[in-house]
Amino acid sequence: MTVQPVLIDGQWTISAGTSTFQAVNPRTREPLPGRYPISPWAEVVRAIDAASRAAAIVRDWSGDRFAAFLEKFADRIDARAAELVEIANLETALPVQPRLKDAELPRTSNQLRQAAQAARDGSWSVPTIDTAPNIRSMLRPIGPVVVFGPNNFPFAFNSAAGGDFAAAVAAGNPVIAKGHSSHPSTTRLLAEEAQLAANETGMPAGFIQLIYRTSHDDGKRLVSHPAIGASGYTGSRSAGSQLKEAADRVGKPIYLELSSINPIYFLPGAIREKGSALAEQFASSCLMGVGQFCTNPGLVILKSGTESEDWIRQVAERFSAAPVGTLLGSSVQTHLESGIQTLVSHGATVVTGGASGGGAGFCCQNTLLRVTGAKFIASSAALQTEAFGNASLIVVVDSDAEFVAVTQALEGNLTGCLYSATNGSDDALYDMIVPILRQKVGRLLNDKMPTGVAVVAAMNHGGPFPATGHPGFTAVGIPASLKRFAMLQCYDAVRPHRLPAALSDQSPNSSIWRLIDGQWMQGDVPGK
Amino acid sequence: MTVQPVLIDGQWTISAGTSTFQAVNPRTREPLPGRYPISPWAEVVRAIDAASRAAAIVRDWSGDRFAAFLEKFADRIDARAAELVEIANLETALPVQPRLKDAELPRTSNQLRQAAQAARDGSWSVPTIDTAPNIRSMLRPIGPVVVFGPNNFPFAFNSAAGGDFAAAVAAGNPVIAKGHSSHPSTTRLLAEEAQLAANETGMPAGFIQLIYRTSHDDGKRLVSHPAIGASGYTGSRSAGSQLKEAADRVGKPIYLELSSINPIYFLPGAIREKGSALAEQFASSCLMGVGQFCTNPGLVILKSGTESEDWIRQVAERFSAAPVGTLLGSSVQTHLESGIQTLVSHGATVVTGGASGGGAGFCCQNTLLRVTGAKFIASSAALQTEAFGNASLIVVVDSDAEFVAVTQALEGNLTGCLYSATNGSDDALYDMIVPILRQKVGRLLNDKMPTGVAVVAAMNHGGPFPATGHPGFTAVGIPASLKRFAMLQCYDAVRPHRLPAALSDQSPNSSIWRLIDGQWMQGDVPGK
Repeated sequence: MTVQPVLIDGQWTISAGTSTFQAVNPRTREPLPGRYPISPWAEVVRAIDAASRAAAIVRDWSGDRFAAFLEKFADRIDARAAELVEIANLETALPVQPRLKDAELPRTSNQLRQAAQAARDGSWSVPTIDTAPNIRSMLRPIGPVVVFGPNNFPFAFNSAAGGDFAAAVAAGNPVIAKGHSSHPSTTRLLAEEAQLAANETGMPAGFIQLIYRTSHDDGKRLVSHPAIGASGYTGSRSAGSQLKEAADRVGKPIYLELSSINPIYFLPGAIREKGSALAEQFASSCLMGVGQFCTNPGLVILKSGTESEDWIRQVAERFSAAPVGTLLGSSVQTHLESGIQTLVSHGATVVTGGASGGGAGFCCQNTLLRVTGAKFIASSAALQTEAFGNASLIVVVDSDAEFVAVTQALEGNLTGCLYSATNGSDDALYDMIVPILRQKVGRLLNDKMPTGVAVVAAMNHGGPFPATGHPGFTAVGIPASLKRFAMLQCYDAVRPHRLPAALSDQSPNSSIWRLIDGQWMQGDVPGK
Repeated sequence: MTVQPVLIDGQWTISAGTSTFQAVNPRTREPLPGRYPISPWAEVVRAIDAASRAAAIVRDWSGDRFAAFLEKFADRIDARAAELVEIANLETALPVQPRLKDAELPRTSNQLRQAAQAARDGSWSVPTIDTAPNIRSMLRPIGPVVVFGPNNFPFAFNSAAGGDFAAAVAAGNPVIAKGHSSHPSTTRLLAEEAQLAANETGMPAGFIQLIYRTSHDDGKRLVSHPAIGASGYTGSRSAGSQLKEAADRVGKPIYLELSSINPIYFLPGAIREKGSALAEQFASSCLMGVGQFCTNPGLVILKSGTESEDWIRQVAERFSAAPVGTLLGSSVQTHLESGIQTLVSHGATVVTGGASGGGAGFCCQNTLLRVTGAKFIASSAALQTEAFGNASLIVVVDSDAEFVAVTQALEGNLTGCLYSATNGSDDALYDMIVPILRQKVGRLLNDKMPTGVAVVAAMNHGGPFPATGHPGFTAVGIPASLKRFAMLQCYDAVRPHRLPAALSDQSPNSSIWRLIDGQWMQGDVPGK
């Protein structure tokens, strides 16, 4: 079987690596066609060098040029949608419809187009001009960006096409994509289209590159290499923490999305008002995509009582009645099993499910667990172990004080949701919980499940550690996500002809917003 | 001698610490009156707990209240200026005039007033509203902030009154100030005024706290404590790196200003055009404040030749003719001596100075060193050792290629300056250097020394590691410096009465800028 080439310095090239791997069809557990290389360090260095050359070439390009590439790439993805969806389905077992074809692929090309618009407009870079002292600053490209994609979004978070990729490119940076080993063919197809789009729009060689796998040590060397500007990583907490440590040690920004169990509070009045509807909504959100979402609700907090017991019974019935989906891969099943085991060994009991199997390929029964508030508080670290997949833990608390104590014990999360009565009967409790919860979650929701992540300017797909590595940034939502891949560059008395266009007296376009002498405005510096 | 109290939970309290220290008058090398405690961990925990309570109380306060405190504090500093200046002069040996009285103290109260204005206005928090999906987000207080002040700005970067303090408070956070051991009485006076201002403006107990010193281990525990939101540190690279590692390990933001040698390029045409004037400007910038500025020009890059030799001679004459100033303390002298020693042992030669003494108290001769471009490139790490104080290293390069190679070898810095001919003769060389230099410095200057740091919106007092810990943020310049002490908080379908004022349909004031459906605007959400 031929080994697939890597994309380095503008060329699809035979890898120098002698080790290879194959993806596995999660439904059949059989290897899929296509052998992919593990790149040795020398090959990674070639990619870094090429990315550095590309960064030097594009450094002063206007946003229009990055926008043209992103839009061409989006069009190419849409044009190859059928093949992409077919391959991604084989590699991930995610359903073709509605998931891959109707939701994730259009979202992916839409993200690229939104990023293009942000690049063209330029307002994301916060151009700031103080005319009296003649000091000007803006966010500018940070340098080559390494993107590590996760397993669970083969398109929308793909290292060669997803949100981090779009943000890094729109901010003006070359990307070295490190594909996820579970879907290399999907990634290869996307990178093929990216490279063709790059050629068609005049991007330099090395602007977009793809390697499939490295040793763990080489991954650490990559994110901490002097020529790398920043990295984006979405994946497991253990691997991500190692990369973070390596990057932190040399002060290289790395944006991570590591672990989140996304607590949902169903306050007593809400259960009374619409318990059945909420049981349906919750079960559906929790089992969607076999629970393999970053924002999957893995933790529920409920007040003890007969209504809650009835609610738990309803959810359990839905869990056991629902078909068991196929997980993304062998390691997802293993981690889910061990996550459930950790929860059980620290006092959680299985309400339904809990065992492997029940469906096709890699799978595990739809699993609902429960634990008392007291036990949760006593073993809060272990009971926040992420059981990534179709499992959720219900914490049944005995009092309002326990609601508060459980909240105080929570780690950082991407989201936190509260369902409360419409008649105000839960408001006092809400007001006890939210001041604590608010500091621990990036996105607070009311009366709504967290699994939908709208790609809009106000979205925050971020949150305190361990949800991410820094609570000031978001991985989804344009233009804010671009700021991760930029550095603040100030020009102090720099001669006018040497300024970036966005900092000149003349505005480079009619839409860019600039903060000029303390006022946001579009257009030229007044009086110039 | 009485031990001075610490400020914890709203009270000036006898420390539980049994160890104490005294500041030293740098001019006389004699201990100053006043014995200060080293706080044990239990005392630090009391401060953390009080700060947490204060954070919970002020969480939803409007910016007006923080502004009122900041302005009252600024007024109080101005009113106590004479005493503050006198004490700071005793503790630092920095001149009363113009430095402390006419420059640094007014700058400090001005910073507090600018921060107040930013807090009142609220635009710094980037309120973003997408009406169709009803998703809203903004930057909000991150939680209690620990500020470690440096030795070299007893007012403007003081942990209890300086730039980090002002930014943290304006963003809505309580501050735990960790005073610098070299000027505890200055810090105590500032904290006294802060506490009085806090009382007068109704801030809760624990909003402003002060401890003077902890063990190194307790410092690491402090910045990584779960209840701490973020830390700001300005100081030595070794101590800062240890704090950084502790904070990074648990994903707590820490903003550091560590080390910067601030390269200055005098291109050949500039030397020809105005060499004497530049020698005067450089010597004056380099020796100002005995070279103890974060932006002190510690590295000069020049082309070899007779004009450059003449220029070096002129600078050396100025260095040896200028009075030798008193350094901030014993450890500054020790570090400066060892820094010079490191440079010499890696091939630099002393042009003038190089020895201890020459002035009053802690001091070292005004020192100019030189090294060839080839040697610099061969030992670039060692030859970028920061010799903090009145010393500078000149790198004499032989070719344009060496200009480029030296630039490639540079680490991250706060600033980079280029002086070039007005007739365009240096432009080709400028264009070879700047694309490399630009990625390594936070602020690029033309024809201007880096030592002035204007407190304006477009200022960037930041840069790539090791200048700081993250190149996306600035420690000086309001409102940008506030963003360091905030987290991004999104409200997804949150009921209207539960939204922060800045995210409501009704604008909380007429001046706040909000990004509503992709447009920056002041005023209410259109149609509401």
